[in-house]
Amino acid sequence: MRTLQLTVEYDGTDFQGFQRLSAGRTVQGTLEAAWREVTGEAARTTGAGRTDAGVHALRQVVSLRTEAGLPLANTARALNGRLPPDLRVRAACERDETFHARFSATERTYRYMIRRAGKPSVFQDRFSLLVREPLEIAAMRQAAERLLGSHDFRSFGSPEPGRTSVREMRRIAVREAGAWLVISLTANAFLRGMARCLVAQLLAAGRGALSPDAVQDRLRAQDRSTAGKSAPPQGLYLARVRYGGENERAMGRDAAILPGVDI
Amino acid sequence: MRTLQLTVEYDGTDFQGFQRLSAGRTVQGTLEAAWREVTGEAARTTGAGRTDAGVHALRQVVSLRTEAGLPLANTARALNGRLPPDLRVRAACERDETFHARFSATERTYRYMIRRAGKPSVFQDRFSLLVREPLEIAAMRQAAERLLGSHDFRSFGSPEPGRTSVREMRRIAVREAGAWLVISLTANAFLRGMARCLVAQLLAAGRGALSPDAVQDRLRAQDRSTAGKSAPPQGLYLARVRYGGENERAMGRDAAILPGVDI
Repeated sequence: MRTLQLTVEYDGTDFQGFQRLSAGRTVQGTLEAAWREVTGEAARTTGAGRTDAGVHALRQVVSLRTEAGLPLANTARALNGRLPPDLRVRAACERDETFHARFSATERTYRYMIRRAGKPSVFQDRFSLLVREPLEIAAMRQAAERLLGSHDFRSFGSPEPGRTSVREMRRIAVREAGAWLVISLTANAFLRGMARCLVAQLLAAGRGALSPDAVQDRLRAQDRSTAGKSAPPQGLYLARVRYGGENERAMGRDAAILPGVDI
Repeated sequence: MRTLQLTVEYDGTDFQGFQRLSAGRTVQGTLEAAWREVTGEAARTTGAGRTDAGVHALRQVVSLRTEAGLPLANTARALNGRLPPDLRVRAACERDETFHARFSATERTYRYMIRRAGKPSVFQDRFSLLVREPLEIAAMRQAAERLLGSHDFRSFGSPEPGRTSVREMRRIAVREAGAWLVISLTANAFLRGMARCLVAQLLAAGRGALSPDAVQDRLRAQDRSTAGKSAPPQGLYLARVRYGGENERAMGRDAAILPGVDI
């Protein structure tokens, strides 16, 4: 029995999220169907992050255990030959048998892409959120600071039954790049829906609708009903998963999300 | 009877081209269905360029004649409320009764987007062509010069039966922008398949597979079988249509095709 790690990229638009469903097109289901076509084996995969419908991934990490003799060097190419164009395997690595894409992960980074100018666009709306109201970046950064550290984040996401809702938020960066605003969130792990809910808090702070103190009050309330609407999925990317130690190798550099040209 | 001009943007990936088919999802068919839902009227539309399956448009121009009383100011919004997210009406204008999106057009510009570095990407492959072989830009520009002016372009595109295959190529720009190469082609009109076939000639010149003289020989041969494979559709955009005179108004500035950020 071998344990493999696949690093996958996907355009989440036409997937009903990462996690396999009894009906509906999912990343996990599509990947497992390709694996079966290539190897004849009905493997079950695990993902580092269970992204929602419409959320993208630059570097999702998937693990599986297999008896198949498919050479590692051919694995990505063979799977990509069966996968649709919105889902690609970027790398395949062999891991020791204790490796588990979800439980071994020590850190996840999500990134949210916001366009601050321009019009709705069939090209850009698929991959980002257009916000034409003015945003006060300093207020967004102040609100972000209140979220750093270990907290019970149940105000901003859904815990799994019987599991902790404490997460350690390690970094939040709010960066401007031309007409773009990019929010990067790094934590040991995220509750379900947490990344998009936190982005909505920062946007509310940027619009002046919520003070940094009010964001902190919401966090302390430990009450999901206080947090309001989440930011829409199309701006969100699972950007990076870290494993620490030797599992860190082979993760590669972050890819450029979006083409770097403005004609 | 009113004559309307609609300026539309689309992501061509999931369309079987512009032109209505008896079966299959097309831009024209989708637009006419939305028009019928909004007005109850079965209008027939005409497009300035009949883009192929997978080809995108920043500023396709569509005309139609209508008895519907839908106010001009509400037209784009009403249609967009019925259109899928990969097809948007950007502007609606009233024209005089002689206006015809195709026959009144005096000039079309197509643009082709090439990535010269990086890996295949689910985000970028949909909207551009990855070319990792070195390209000699000077050779591409020399080949482009041989194509300027009025020529019978039947070597590089399919004329309609009984119609001329002479076209006037007015400008070809080969521009570098970071890792990107953008080819813009402006002519009074294009034969079917001509833009992608010309891009393939320029790429062959850039790779050193074809000298600028050889490109000119192919043009002079007036033989479609000499031109080889065309560049794939996903890199091509109908970028602009000109009408001259007063019809020129309201065409708007060129949109940025792709997000201008490289994180």
